Amino acid sequence: MSLGPWPHLGYVDSKLDRAAVRRIDPQFLTACAAQETCGFYLVSGEMILLKRAGDTFDPMFTSKELQAIAPRSERVFLGLLREAGRFGVSLPQETVEALKSNERYHVTDLRSIAVQGLVAEDHLAPLAEAKALLHWHARRHYCSNCGHPTEVVQGGWRRDCPHCKAQHFPRTDPVVIMLAVRGEFCLLGRQTRFVSGMWSCLAGFVEPGETIEEAARRETLEEAGIRCGRVRYFASQPWPFPSSLMIGCHAEAISEDIVVDRDELEDVRWFSRDEAAAMLMRTHPDGLGTPPPVAIAHHIIRAWVEKGDGVFS
Amino acid sequence: MSLGPWPHLGYVDSKLDRAAVRRIDPQFLTACAAQETCGFYLVSGEMILLKRAGDTFDPMFTSKELQAIAPRSERVFLGLLREAGRFGVSLPQETVEALKSNERYHVTDLRSIAVQGLVAEDHLAPLAEAKALLHWHARRHYCSNCGHPTEVVQGGWRRDCPHCKAQHFPRTDPVVIMLAVRGEFCLLGRQTRFVSGMWSCLAGFVEPGETIEEAARRETLEEAGIRCGRVRYFASQPWPFPSSLMIGCHAEAISEDIVVDRDELEDVRWFSRDEAAAMLMRTHPDGLGTPPPVAIAHHIIRAWVEKGDGVFS
Repeated sequence: MSLGPWPHLGYVDSKLDRAAVRRIDPQFLTACAAQETCGFYLVSGEMILLKRAGDTFDPMFTSKELQAIAPRSERVFLGLLREAGRFGVSLPQETVEALKSNERYHVTDLRSIAVQGLVAEDHLAPLAEAKALLHWHARRHYCSNCGHPTEVVQGGWRRDCPHCKAQHFPRTDPVVIMLAVRGEFCLLGRQTRFVSGMWSCLAGFVEPGETIEEAARRETLEEAGIRCGRVRYFASQPWPFPSSLMIGCHAEAISEDIVVDRDELEDVRWFSRDEAAAMLMRTHPDGLGTPPPVAIAHHIIRAWVEKGDGVFS
Repeated sequence: MSLGPWPHLGYVDSKLDRAAVRRIDPQFLTACAAQETCGFYLVSGEMILLKRAGDTFDPMFTSKELQAIAPRSERVFLGLLREAGRFGVSLPQETVEALKSNERYHVTDLRSIAVQGLVAEDHLAPLAEAKALLHWHARRHYCSNCGHPTEVVQGGWRRDCPHCKAQHFPRTDPVVIMLAVRGEFCLLGRQTRFVSGMWSCLAGFVEPGETIEEAARRETLEEAGIRCGRVRYFASQPWPFPSSLMIGCHAEAISEDIVVDRDELEDVRWFSRDEAAAMLMRTHPDGLGTPPPVAIAHHIIRAWVEKGDGVFS
């Protein structure tokens, strides 16, 4: 079964060179940030500041524009696009609140930006990098080892404790997101926070001391009571809500009777391949749907709808 | 090419049911820890305490034995083996030091335990879980958000700040470990800390805002100057040194000239398939070798030696 051209996944295929060796060179970073070609992405918690540019939006600000909006703000070095620097900047909430009523700007969250296609696609990956990294900083002003205030070093890629000398690195949380399948049926769940009619793959954090495959089996068993055998990796996606690495898999279900974990999910159900196809294409008679193409869940479901058990070969 | 039976990977295939729903039930955890069938793994930083048991060793202590060694120690709930509880316990360094001279015990690190096969294989996964989780706790006594002391909750699977109400979860750091290959050659590197003659896959942390595949390409380029095209996931392994998730991949190299990052590596070289086979089997004329079978690098290299470009299909 083919559903037509394959849509784009969001937040991937970054065009930036992360230029990690440059992070340890404060002089380079200062000079880089002062250049006219340098671009800044402005983040405040879950929200991103965009400039209106005709019918679309531009998420990148110049050094001069940044100075006018937030002259003293914490920034992280994202990398280089050709020779031009790219930084993420943390805006205070009150600054963003004040700009909401200004017609030249638009304040919205990164999910909406991706789903609605508000900015050129190449901006999504650096925005994800900026948001994940700045979120990590926001809750790391103190040393977890000794309680003293920490300092930002290496262009935002490390925080050091001047008291106990502990070094702290940004965290990325691996999450398994999997589609359990059994013959012509696949297992989808609903979180209570989902929009009405949306069903998606089950997911959960990989825990210390387990493999990706073990985590996929454990989460499917915990959340839906379904046992799985083979687990096959499909693809991955950075998911900056707040700082996950989504690891997409297909899993071969070896049981059928669902027991829903109501603390985690509103419901879990088996869906036929035809029904899943209709949900992907937004043609389901009851208005049911999957997550949009920017999310890896869409692609995991679609791969199975198109290939069936071929996803395991 | 077949090199014979496939050896075991370490720290995987846990027999424990993590029983996550039990973590929030302190009464259950207390009752569980008091049972005669309950087992405790004793960890002190990098070191593990083992009991001598004839020619081999037993890493699991009873509640009574634990009371005698360290009556007041922090513990984390690892899960259940059938109905019997399994806990990880953090021993003070001085306790372990004092036991080193006691003939009934043996103190060594978890790498040596796995490589030398000192304990029954089923203990490796829970030991990895215990070590990773306890290492996380060791550096998390203060809230990174506000600097106040934190409290252990949920059987060791969360720390809460009573002051700012922040919740902190154990971290698992995704690491890509990949073998770049080009025709009949593969790319291996040496860290200065490696034992003499050992060469392994390149590896590095997945950063916020990138996919597994992007991280594999970036690290290979940063460390060896080699560009890669296709990246194919192979397998994963928990690696509790201190708390990584190793994500093993094969990568198709599309350039040949190596530029070694001497800050990270002592050397990087191309090796032929025949040479890599000899290194895996410990028959290399110059005594060169790969990491042992407990490490995923061994399996990544072996899969390519046996299948060649078949690893990409």
